Amino acid sequence: MTVTLEHDRFVETMREQAAIGGTEGGGLHRLALSDEDREIRDWFAEQAEAAGLDLRVDAFGNMFARRAGTDPDAAPVMVGSHLDSQPYGGIYDGALGVVSALEFVRTLNDSDRETRHPVEVVNWTNEEGSRFQPAMQGSGVWVGAHDLEEQYARTDEDGAVFEDELERIGYKGDEPVEPGEDYEAYLELHVEQGPYLEEHAADVGVVTGVVGFTWGAITFHGEADHSGPTPMHYRSDALVAAADVITAIRRIPGTLGERTVGTTGYIDAKPNSINIIPEEVTITWGFRDPTLAVIEEARERVLAEAEAAAEREGVDWEFEDRMWSDPVHFADRCVDAVQAGADDHGYDSMRIFSGAGHDAAHMTSVCDTAMVFAVSEDGKSHTEEEYTSWDDCYAAANTLATAAADLVDVQ
Amino acid sequence: MTVTLEHDRFVETMREQAAIGGTEGGGLHRLALSDEDREIRDWFAEQAEAAGLDLRVDAFGNMFARRAGTDPDAAPVMVGSHLDSQPYGGIYDGALGVVSALEFVRTLNDSDRETRHPVEVVNWTNEEGSRFQPAMQGSGVWVGAHDLEEQYARTDEDGAVFEDELERIGYKGDEPVEPGEDYEAYLELHVEQGPYLEEHAADVGVVTGVVGFTWGAITFHGEADHSGPTPMHYRSDALVAAADVITAIRRIPGTLGERTVGTTGYIDAKPNSINIIPEEVTITWGFRDPTLAVIEEARERVLAEAEAAAEREGVDWEFEDRMWSDPVHFADRCVDAVQAGADDHGYDSMRIFSGAGHDAAHMTSVCDTAMVFAVSEDGKSHTEEEYTSWDDCYAAANTLATAAADLVDVQ
Repeated sequence: MTVTLEHDRFVETMREQAAIGGTEGGGLHRLALSDEDREIRDWFAEQAEAAGLDLRVDAFGNMFARRAGTDPDAAPVMVGSHLDSQPYGGIYDGALGVVSALEFVRTLNDSDRETRHPVEVVNWTNEEGSRFQPAMQGSGVWVGAHDLEEQYARTDEDGAVFEDELERIGYKGDEPVEPGEDYEAYLELHVEQGPYLEEHAADVGVVTGVVGFTWGAITFHGEADHSGPTPMHYRSDALVAAADVITAIRRIPGTLGERTVGTTGYIDAKPNSINIIPEEVTITWGFRDPTLAVIEEARERVLAEAEAAAEREGVDWEFEDRMWSDPVHFADRCVDAVQAGADDHGYDSMRIFSGAGHDAAHMTSVCDTAMVFAVSEDGKSHTEEEYTSWDDCYAAANTLATAAADLVDVQ
Repeated sequence: MTVTLEHDRFVETMREQAAIGGTEGGGLHRLALSDEDREIRDWFAEQAEAAGLDLRVDAFGNMFARRAGTDPDAAPVMVGSHLDSQPYGGIYDGALGVVSALEFVRTLNDSDRETRHPVEVVNWTNEEGSRFQPAMQGSGVWVGAHDLEEQYARTDEDGAVFEDELERIGYKGDEPVEPGEDYEAYLELHVEQGPYLEEHAADVGVVTGVVGFTWGAITFHGEADHSGPTPMHYRSDALVAAADVITAIRRIPGTLGERTVGTTGYIDAKPNSINIIPEEVTITWGFRDPTLAVIEEARERVLAEAEAAAEREGVDWEFEDRMWSDPVHFADRCVDAVQAGADDHGYDSMRIFSGAGHDAAHMTSVCDTAMVFAVSEDGKSHTEEEYTSWDDCYAAANTLATAAADLVDVQ
């Protein structure tokens, strides 16, 4: 069944949510467990109630709003994303996914359509990971990838404890943080956060998986000498070795895969004084690719570059792996449903791997999963300049709704 | 006249001073205007009094201990260095220069020798510049290179004000911070802080000047995108541009002069997060060389490298000059006196340009000046591992004393 959402209500709902924590720069500042997060949660709860949904909040703040199905033996289909934002982030990001899921349910209500499977609209806690780490925290605990107590104890920069903040905003619910039953499928709409859809003039993205990644840190140990009287050939400069590896990390992706990316996002130098040769420098690496072997190769290469740079500069070095994620491949039946949803509407779609992590990646361990991507202008995200036209938002939402209608088996 | 100091007393005096602010690691922690600085100043005043010297303290804490000359028209010869240290620095550094000057006066006293010119032993305030900037602060104000009130207002990391700290330790003296009369010459003994003397198996260094330098900072402005979904060819990574310039700064000296050095000592990256492409990165440059044209060329080259790196990476950039110092060439008559001092003792000497700044560089604007360098094992300084054998200390001190005897005209 091709589902077409009510355009003006959809846009109006997007605008409503964007007003909560909205910034002067036209973006969104709605950090996890902040007062703004409480407000948007209250808003979500009101929308759920108005739509006749049964709302459950688990002990990690994840919110599930369920519309009953006709078949008591049919497992629910979950649809949604997250309502928290980056600091001064964009108004689309995950909110577009939650609003689209709400609009899907409202559209079923409009025409009094029943579904064989229950539909559950989800708002995951702390997807962004900017205030409390890690990202995708709520879905991660819910699927069992993280330990609940450990995550409760996480603190933000000011030392505020996650569990305290969750209680403070009144969203430490009663439900256990776990599926508790089988799920039929999970669908998530999110903005692409990359430029590929726009570059290929696609209306909507059919997401086939999420890239895997390797994160780690390399520390070089040199000698902190006076930068004046120490001849160049006497130096063991930790920063020069680090610079070699930063340059290598820029270069390595171009020798591996079409979608490989590599980044040094962090650097720390000691003693960090204009007049002293740097003694200790730590940099990070991050590589992502859809293919496991490519990620493994990228990690090997950066370590080989570090070894070579350390030898050239006469410094010691060490490394630590910080995080690892295998590439995720979504279930064919869900991807096909998304593809059919786009095709039914006549949208120009493009198959795409997600370059960023999403709650959907966690959900693959619970049930069949897929995602829809909306076009991100210039690929910008996590900034107030993030932009998706209402046409592109609407195309992605209609694709999601049509795919969801297929999976829930509209009667 | 060849002056030979009393070896054991000289070593004992070095040990005495090293006990004040001495560290468990065998170094010295005697920061400017700290309690340890007060202690060493009290010690210096006692030594001066015991040697019958007339002590003056100026309003910036510079200490001058004078032994009268026989000719009322003969200008004084100043000899000395500084007693403050780097954090966990070495016991030789400038203290060796002050102790050697004291021992020179004591040796004159031992044999009741009079001199035509007065001899003045100096302890300059805050040569190191580690607690309060700039380095060589006391001599800089005294020669008129810095404004007194501006320097009084300088603060340390904890917000302590220079003038308050100077008063707290009781060393804001009554004398105006200026020469007040003509000076005949200035001689300073300091450890080399570089490896050249040891590398050339020299006993002592005859310093002919001080390298000039250029210091500046370059800031690259890129775009802070999500490191996952942003393709490599979409990036404007400020850290990659900075890394290119760090590498260039390592390479440039090898294409310029034998003594050219270039250093990036400082780097600051924003937002400095493992998962975000660096948006704004600031690095510093520092180049030193004995030749003015080489310093100018080094500065031009690093700016050209920054321009090229910025263009490659598609980032904006700007720079600011932070400090500039022309190379200093010491007066022939003082350099010759030092050379003769070394030759008289039969020491293997080596003519050398200082790679670091010294109070002597300021003093060239007041009177004829030269320096003596003592061997620095492995070129290490500003660390507890700084080491000069007593033999090498003694050779440098005898060279200084003999050169000073020449300039003061021992009767």
